[in-house]
Amino acid sequence: MIKVGIVGATGYTGVELLRLLVRHPGVQVAVITSRAEAGMAVADMYPSLRGFLDLTFTEPDVDALSACDIVFFATPHGVAQNLVPALMQRNVRIIDISADFRLRDTDLWEQWYGQTHGCPELVAEAVYGLPETNREQIRSARLVACPGCYPTAAQLALLPLVESNLVDNSNLIINAASGATGAGRQAKVDNLLTEISDSFKAYAANGHRHLPEIEQGLRERQPEGAEPAQVTFVPHLLPIIRGIQATVYARALDVDALPDLQALYAQRYAQEPFVDVLPAGEHPQTRTVKGSNTCRIAIFRPQQRDTLVVMSVIDNLTKGASGQAVQNMNIMCGFDETAGLDLVPILP
Amino acid sequence: MIKVGIVGATGYTGVELLRLLVRHPGVQVAVITSRAEAGMAVADMYPSLRGFLDLTFTEPDVDALSACDIVFFATPHGVAQNLVPALMQRNVRIIDISADFRLRDTDLWEQWYGQTHGCPELVAEAVYGLPETNREQIRSARLVACPGCYPTAAQLALLPLVESNLVDNSNLIINAASGATGAGRQAKVDNLLTEISDSFKAYAANGHRHLPEIEQGLRERQPEGAEPAQVTFVPHLLPIIRGIQATVYARALDVDALPDLQALYAQRYAQEPFVDVLPAGEHPQTRTVKGSNTCRIAIFRPQQRDTLVVMSVIDNLTKGASGQAVQNMNIMCGFDETAGLDLVPILP
Amino acid sequence: MIKVGIVGATGYTGVELLRLLVRHPGVQVAVITSRAEAGMAVADMYPSLRGFLDLTFTEPDVDALSACDIVFFATPHGVAQNLVPALMQRNVRIIDISADFRLRDTDLWEQWYGQTHGCPELVAEAVYGLPETNREQIRSARLVACPGCYPTAAQLALLPLVESNLVDNSNLIINAASGATGAGRQAKVDNLLTEISDSFKAYAANGHRHLPEIEQGLRERQPEGAEPAQVTFVPHLLPIIRGIQATVYARALDVDALPDLQALYAQRYAQEPFVDVLPAGEHPQTRTVKGSNTCRIAIFRPQQRDTLVVMSVIDNLTKGASGQAVQNMNIMCGFDETAGLDLVPILP
Amino acid sequence: MIKVGIVGATGYTGVELLRLLVRHPGVQVAVITSRAEAGMAVADMYPSLRGFLDLTFTEPDVDALSACDIVFFATPHGVAQNLVPALMQRNVRIIDISADFRLRDTDLWEQWYGQTHGCPELVAEAVYGLPETNREQIRSARLVACPGCYPTAAQLALLPLVESNLVDNSNLIINAASGATGAGRQAKVDNLLTEISDSFKAYAANGHRHLPEIEQGLRERQPEGAEPAQVTFVPHLLPIIRGIQATVYARALDVDALPDLQALYAQRYAQEPFVDVLPAGEHPQTRTVKGSNTCRIAIFRPQQRDTLVVMSVIDNLTKGASGQAVQNMNIMCGFDETAGLDLVPILP
Repeated sequence: MIKVGIVGATGYTGVELLRLLVRHPGVQVAVITSRAEAGMAVADMYPSLRGFLDLTFTEPDVDALSACDIVFFATPHGVAQNLVPALMQRNVRIIDISADFRLRDTDLWEQWYGQTHGCPELVAEAVYGLPETNREQIRSARLVACPGCYPTAAQLALLPLVESNLVDNSNLIINAASGATGAGRQAKVDNLLTEISDSFKAYAANGHRHLPEIEQGLRERQPEGAEPAQVTFVPHLLPIIRGIQATVYARALDVDALPDLQALYAQRYAQEPFVDVLPAGEHPQTRTVKGSNTCRIAIFRPQQRDTLVVMSVIDNLTKGASGQAVQNMNIMCGFDETAGLDLVPILP
Repeated sequence: MIKVGIVGATGYTGVELLRLLVRHPGVQVAVITSRAEAGMAVADMYPSLRGFLDLTFTEPDVDALSACDIVFFATPHGVAQNLVPALMQRNVRIIDISADFRLRDTDLWEQWYGQTHGCPELVAEAVYGLPETNREQIRSARLVACPGCYPTAAQLALLPLVESNLVDNSNLIINAASGATGAGRQAKVDNLLTEISDSFKAYAANGHRHLPEIEQGLRERQPEGAEPAQVTFVPHLLPIIRGIQATVYARALDVDALPDLQALYAQRYAQEPFVDVLPAGEHPQTRTVKGSNTCRIAIFRPQQRDTLVVMSVIDNLTKGASGQAVQNMNIMCGFDETAGLDLVPILP
Repeated sequence: MIKVGIVGATGYTGVELLRLLVRHPGVQVAVITSRAEAGMAVADMYPSLRGFLDLTFTEPDVDALSACDIVFFATPHGVAQNLVPALMQRNVRIIDISADFRLRDTDLWEQWYGQTHGCPELVAEAVYGLPETNREQIRSARLVACPGCYPTAAQLALLPLVESNLVDNSNLIINAASGATGAGRQAKVDNLLTEISDSFKAYAANGHRHLPEIEQGLRERQPEGAEPAQVTFVPHLLPIIRGIQATVYARALDVDALPDLQALYAQRYAQEPFVDVLPAGEHPQTRTVKGSNTCRIAIFRPQQRDTLVVMSVIDNLTKGASGQAVQNMNIMCGFDETAGLDLVPILP
Repeated sequence: MIKVGIVGATGYTGVELLRLLVRHPGVQVAVITSRAEAGMAVADMYPSLRGFLDLTFTEPDVDALSACDIVFFATPHGVAQNLVPALMQRNVRIIDISADFRLRDTDLWEQWYGQTHGCPELVAEAVYGLPETNREQIRSARLVACPGCYPTAAQLALLPLVESNLVDNSNLIINAASGATGAGRQAKVDNLLTEISDSFKAYAANGHRHLPEIEQGLRERQPEGAEPAQVTFVPHLLPIIRGIQATVYARALDVDALPDLQALYAQRYAQEPFVDVLPAGEHPQTRTVKGSNTCRIAIFRPQQRDTLVVMSVIDNLTKGASGQAVQNMNIMCGFDETAGLDLVPILP
């Protein structure tokens, strides 16, 4: 039994992390902090946890958190970078679900996030927590930066093509759509049911913070000499609670040299416990992964032309955030990688 | 490890039962029948089960089903009554999620269901599978008739008042609302998203089949001499997938003699693993039980007048159908009553 | 052409009022005020109005508003009462969509709204703007207090029974459910799509501000000597944008003396342009009134017992607020009562 | 006053057409046919029309329809082609909302629609009813083929770029998403609320019937010598009732030679009553066109790279079907083009 702490568990990634951890066989949740809600029982904020958890939010406190083996950060960006160094000094291992340590280029981070990075010295050590590419590094990592939700869906869709250098990297198009939990649990008019249900829209077409993360992730997996991945990324807002779909368009460099794409995807993910390549011709649906850590993927070559279409779906709160964080914890701690994550999606 | 079979698993109660059983520690799902889909892999119909279940629908067959310890019926009414006798003769225990054996009065059944009952001789033996009232009888039952979804919510809301004879039984009002899975997985225009989303309506106000079941259930729990429960029951259709709320109105017989209602409810359900009485003043929400077997209840006495209001919420597919069926199985087979049912609701 | 002004048009009743008024043949919208958004083009806040309206929000200003024949208040309660006296002194007629002048008993108002009333001297003059009961008084009114959304649905459902003294007034039960626009356009976590979609709940069971308004409205229509109406009112929140359903339960005083209820309702509303009594046995649906000023009503007597059930549906923003306000304006100004309100509901 | 008939008004395009026509100042709806529902009052099927329409469905009958000036077909494909010749012989003008006469190449039609065309001799005469490209031809047309919903959104998004030959036509990507009314009012499990709400998916990625229509429409507008438009089109299903968004990606042929794109779009549509080019940087939302005939468009050039992104939104039942049909009728009959179409979108 390891002890874990969670900083900032009042948001949706926090409650999702608790949903997973309270049933994890190797974990005891010891500390849950929230500056705003200190003193409140967690189950009073989230009645879904009544009977499963008997903890109270406490003020973030380095001493209390240092008694944990692992501390998760389920905070907005900008918070983890200030607390992480003190905890790592006391040998706590960190799994950061926020964006603080995802980009290796601190200048780029500061440009996209509009603030000075509080802990640039740890950026190089941080391991990008996408097990499908970095499993071995994660195993021994002291600090794991969990991928964003869109980057998880987008990279899993594109990796087999990019790793094999089969497509024109200069023009990768990622059309993605996310459920409203992607915007967090913030009191904003824009996220009211009355504003976004029975409707659909794109947003941030001129530039979303997940764009540089996706490009970084793809570029690190390209074979040497390949043209660096350049992505057009347009996110859309779905009137659903959970779920992301990425629909990705890439142009084959040489249609005559294309391998069997279905086999390429099947082989690439054959050993991955949380990536499911659908039978040829099947379209994924977000509801088939609701509440689970699975990513389902399908690849198409419409009209046998040269534009390939790949679709991936994940639950943005699970594989896109807290589930992937637990998967990383399992790898770091030597648990079975699926421990606590054997979740049958809720359908219907 | 017991072996279980499921007759008619193509509907929503079927896939929900599978979601629960594939992770149940004491159960092996051995047979899944569907006349219409025989030969199809179950996971091809329900992609949420990909990786969890490697079975194929087969034709209903008494021999194959007889090799099971327990057979669940997740069929429309009228099916179980024809297959059950042959299976019981071969010592298979039956858990019927359909309506076939819920009403003790066969005439009443035939009147409400508009057909002749195919197996009246087993009606008397059937145990009504509401563990909160019939746990001991369920333990040794050969045939359990699982309650309907509305009757589960309505009875759990009213039982403490009715058992204590505190309210005017001649005028119990049950205003209930259900998610659309309550109507099953049938190709009907009335259940299209385009017909029922962003809308609300009552239906069957002149009489719904769950009315006699609710009255029967309440009357069996009334103290001797009490006026027989008479219910006005109006169901409504919610544009949601899962969830039922019953809002129940009952008039106190004697307001001056009312006990502490919050304490009454808390005590009545103190030992029940799946009934959660909310703190005074809290309103239940269906989302706090989504995907779980829990019923949450709250009691109010508005304006300190003589009309009491009780609200209960359940997931209609879980506590209202397949979860309760598994709870019954656990009791029948001597498993821990919560085995396979330690489900944290998915919230948000 | 009359000139109208709107105070506080940034909320949902404001934009709904504009949707109706920009197409009204007898009206010119001259002034739209908003303290918070002064200087912003109205169509920038509500792109649905692009091309229909070329006005800018201005600071509330008595001089500017006094140039109008009619001023609507689409403000939270507590605002109109401070501005109305100055405007009335300048002979502006007022249609208040807020709650400020609905209750004749100022003490009751102060108790339910938790503040001192700023203009008690005008309360007696205010006409309650339910045309189906007060048409003649509205015609010459200087100050009309538009009914709340729930009270509109509830009173229209109950009036024929109460006016004829057919039911036990001591125990009227109003179970109502509203779309989320009922909560307004406020940045609150409770109203996020992620909190309320795919879910259902009751709220304010211990007392909602519309309760005294409903009781007042019913009591004013009772025949002399009848027991004063006493209401149990439980509102619920629907995961839809627009629409209210009231499902009302009332016990017949004497079942043997009941008239033909279908005929009673049909006759009561035969001359009402915005009340539609459905054919016997039909259940209303909120979607059949979406975007329109119509109230549809159905009456049932389940099992031929003594509890009657009446259902009414309205669009809470139209007949429940801004549409009714326009209907009142039409009556006050001598327009055809349906002018600008010949709205075919949007279905599907 | 002209007389119009509607063949096949039981579907969603039919009821939408009625919503528009019953308030059209120059039209009398004289005949509404439905083989399946002959004898039923239209308002009994669509209660939203109660009080607006007093007609009954009749069997399709050439004599009765021939008394009309205009007959609309709101039928599935394959129906109009069999009735149209007889009606045109009697000088009835036809507006076909179905797909029967959209493709000029009958072989292509037969390949995509999987059946023999019943009336190839009229295909050449049919005018493609997109007023933004074909207004003059529509004026005198005897047979107008209304565009599909996706093709309307896609072409309006792409026309300014394609007409000016600014982008690489060999690789136009149309990622589109539609509300569920796009699938019609058919009793299919796939369209149940329980199957598609709170979820998202792509469909028909390998080829959708609107693909050849989009390519045909674009190619007819290209300047001579331009490479023929080749489209990758992936439709997605939104859990909403009405609305389509097309998000279109096209690569600039020469970024240095690009004109001011915002101005290009503004000028192209300056005279169009139903196309609204949003201010630079604004993203369209489907809800801002709900129930209206407007298409809103926005153009982006993310990161100032060479991939352009254009978004368009329409109400698929209005501008995407029945509203556009009425717009065509207005042009054909010399009415004001906006007659009966001055619809303020319902927001929220």
